[in-house]
Amino acid sequence: MKKSLVYFQSGGPTAIINTSFYGVIKEAKRQTEHIDGIYGSLNGIEGLLNDNLIDLRKEDEAQIELLKQTPAAALGTTRYKLSGDINHEDYQKILTTVRKHNIGYMLVNGGNDSMDTCYKLSTFFRKANVDCKVVGIPKTIDNDLAFTDHCLGYPSAARYVAQSIQDIALDNKVYKKSKFVIVEVMGRHAGWLTAAASVIQDPELKPDYIYLPEEKFDLEEFLVKAKEVYEKKKRALFVVSEGIETQMPAKDKAVDSFGHMQLGGFCAQLASIVQERLGYSTRPIEFSLLQRAGTLAITETDQREAIKVSAMAVKKIVTGKTGVMVIIERKPGPKYKVSYKLKNLRGIANVEHMMSPELIHDVNHGGKLFSEYLLPLIEKPIKLEYDGGITKYTVLKKVKVK
Amino acid sequence: MKKSLVYFQSGGPTAIINTSFYGVIKEAKRQTEHIDGIYGSLNGIEGLLNDNLIDLRKEDEAQIELLKQTPAAALGTTRYKLSGDINHEDYQKILTTVRKHNIGYMLVNGGNDSMDTCYKLSTFFRKANVDCKVVGIPKTIDNDLAFTDHCLGYPSAARYVAQSIQDIALDNKVYKKSKFVIVEVMGRHAGWLTAAASVIQDPELKPDYIYLPEEKFDLEEFLVKAKEVYEKKKRALFVVSEGIETQMPAKDKAVDSFGHMQLGGFCAQLASIVQERLGYSTRPIEFSLLQRAGTLAITETDQREAIKVSAMAVKKIVTGKTGVMVIIERKPGPKYKVSYKLKNLRGIANVEHMMSPELIHDVNHGGKLFSEYLLPLIEKPIKLEYDGGITKYTVLKKVKVK
Repeated sequence: MKKSLVYFQSGGPTAIINTSFYGVIKEAKRQTEHIDGIYGSLNGIEGLLNDNLIDLRKEDEAQIELLKQTPAAALGTTRYKLSGDINHEDYQKILTTVRKHNIGYMLVNGGNDSMDTCYKLSTFFRKANVDCKVVGIPKTIDNDLAFTDHCLGYPSAARYVAQSIQDIALDNKVYKKSKFVIVEVMGRHAGWLTAAASVIQDPELKPDYIYLPEEKFDLEEFLVKAKEVYEKKKRALFVVSEGIETQMPAKDKAVDSFGHMQLGGFCAQLASIVQERLGYSTRPIEFSLLQRAGTLAITETDQREAIKVSAMAVKKIVTGKTGVMVIIERKPGPKYKVSYKLKNLRGIANVEHMMSPELIHDVNHGGKLFSEYLLPLIEKPIKLEYDGGITKYTVLKKVKVK
Repeated sequence: MKKSLVYFQSGGPTAIINTSFYGVIKEAKRQTEHIDGIYGSLNGIEGLLNDNLIDLRKEDEAQIELLKQTPAAALGTTRYKLSGDINHEDYQKILTTVRKHNIGYMLVNGGNDSMDTCYKLSTFFRKANVDCKVVGIPKTIDNDLAFTDHCLGYPSAARYVAQSIQDIALDNKVYKKSKFVIVEVMGRHAGWLTAAASVIQDPELKPDYIYLPEEKFDLEEFLVKAKEVYEKKKRALFVVSEGIETQMPAKDKAVDSFGHMQLGGFCAQLASIVQERLGYSTRPIEFSLLQRAGTLAITETDQREAIKVSAMAVKKIVTGKTGVMVIIERKPGPKYKVSYKLKNLRGIANVEHMMSPELIHDVNHGGKLFSEYLLPLIEKPIKLEYDGGITKYTVLKKVKVK
């Protein structure tokens, strides 16, 4: 008996999550033997809780194509945390939606927290003896999901970081004396995205120091290095991960007059300390939303793999796989090659995959090892369609499933 | 008798100034009857003051080609202000360099302040009866030079702003309730660059308000609008020009605990006020250096016109023109067409060209008029060369002229 498939997006947006979405629709349409309705749940699991599904078969082909160059999350997303107690009423609400629409396949596209949701759902359906399979599709610019070589969305974000650091470095060396630049990069507790700055290897342009959250951060040592670099070069480019913030001494954290930690960002706080203690004119730069939503930074590898991972997820879920996430495994050898596998969600949900000590050391010592890891992921931009000089993007009809 | 040509870059970097540089080298090499040495002055006029010139004929062709996709200022730049008193010793230093290298042609590539330098130099050479011509090549992302339809570098920066606002808007609408986003755009006292945000016309994505520096800014009115928008939509996207900062009430300016006005930028200050007064979670985003140095944003029009303006400057200077800047004149009619003309520097130096009241009004009322102005300038990206996924850039040999 055919069943319906529902797909949802969860957690922070990326430039590639809608390409995963594209891949799901494409493959689901091919699975004519198994799949009946193809639905999207609006705002992640909230759409399942509130019976807010849209019919993806009613979307225009041209708009589906544009998903490949539309950042963010076309179905909307959520940070809603599903209870671990399967007696919680949320599970009954979800079950009602699942039964109403004859849903047999559920694809969850997200990062660590979303894989936790994915795992809970699959466990619930199994225990409740409901024939609904759940498979995860990895997505996070933080690149911190376990077992997979890298996460979809990370390559494009990493290309944004590397390209932007190069542009900033070119700009920051035009005066005989420049500002002390501090760039802040996302990535939560993992340094993967910040480490992308290390692929800039030209001595004239490479960052002076890259601070990863996996390493102990010492403000006083930071200031010693800051002085050393600036006095010598009359310019500086320090790159810091947002994850460093938790390691700041308490008194230095509270620099904002309203007592709001997040205002102006962590790098603005660091910059104010450099200015106050060392007297240099500083320029804090936060990549903010653009590092995860930059359409121009989408890489071909990221796009190709997103489509393949989605195809794999759909192909496997219709054979009965559940409680698993698709991972990308890199094959050994000089040529970049990968294969796609399934991994049980139990070991993935809520686990943060950090950089290895070797990679961490490499990032401030030449960056060769890290470049070997990253360059195949970012090496080619995609061909984009424009309307005027700005990229086209998907507009969905969002026809509600009754 | 053949004379040497010297070219220099002045003021803030842009993504297109090195394309102007490319155009100068290309045309200067064609002028075999008039031009002998082709020199670059390092760090703007400082290279003339300190006899620090490089021989551009010694640079590799491949590196010269890459200038077209290298942001910033390959020769280095300066904000050095030349004295208005022609008896100042600086003029004698410059004269020494000019005589030593038989310089008869001087091309100054910059914005308002640089055109002031350009004007002073041409006046000095004329009064001192020195046969050295001086012609200006317009450059500024602020787009505030008089007489020219637009300034080189502005189209690329404007494309960066429009594309980035679209990306941010897509990202900021994925949650049911999002942050209050305030984006800060450069442009000094003119709103041209900030106004680029108005080409986003999709009601789902367009900025809620765009604040230009030509208009009076009232913080209380801003807060009223902020509340109105956020209460209705549970998200907001306000775009402010950096030029608004001078209009902030004094007490609200000093939000930083160290009393440093520039830390975290003006939009971080505005965001902290919104958070404090209205209680919304905010996200200030400053485009900072990337809006002027973003390689991926370079537009075809900007590139093509930069090469033509430089060619015109070289062709005219060898016929004896001096004390003029090349301007771009847009022809009337639905199809975008321009011609290049010369304009006396007297009316250009130090004059800031502001937006007209019609354009200012249009920006927050549909943006149709402004889009007609801007879209032809940003409509096509250029084809870029990559090394891995990151753009290639010029590395000059910089062989000193003895």
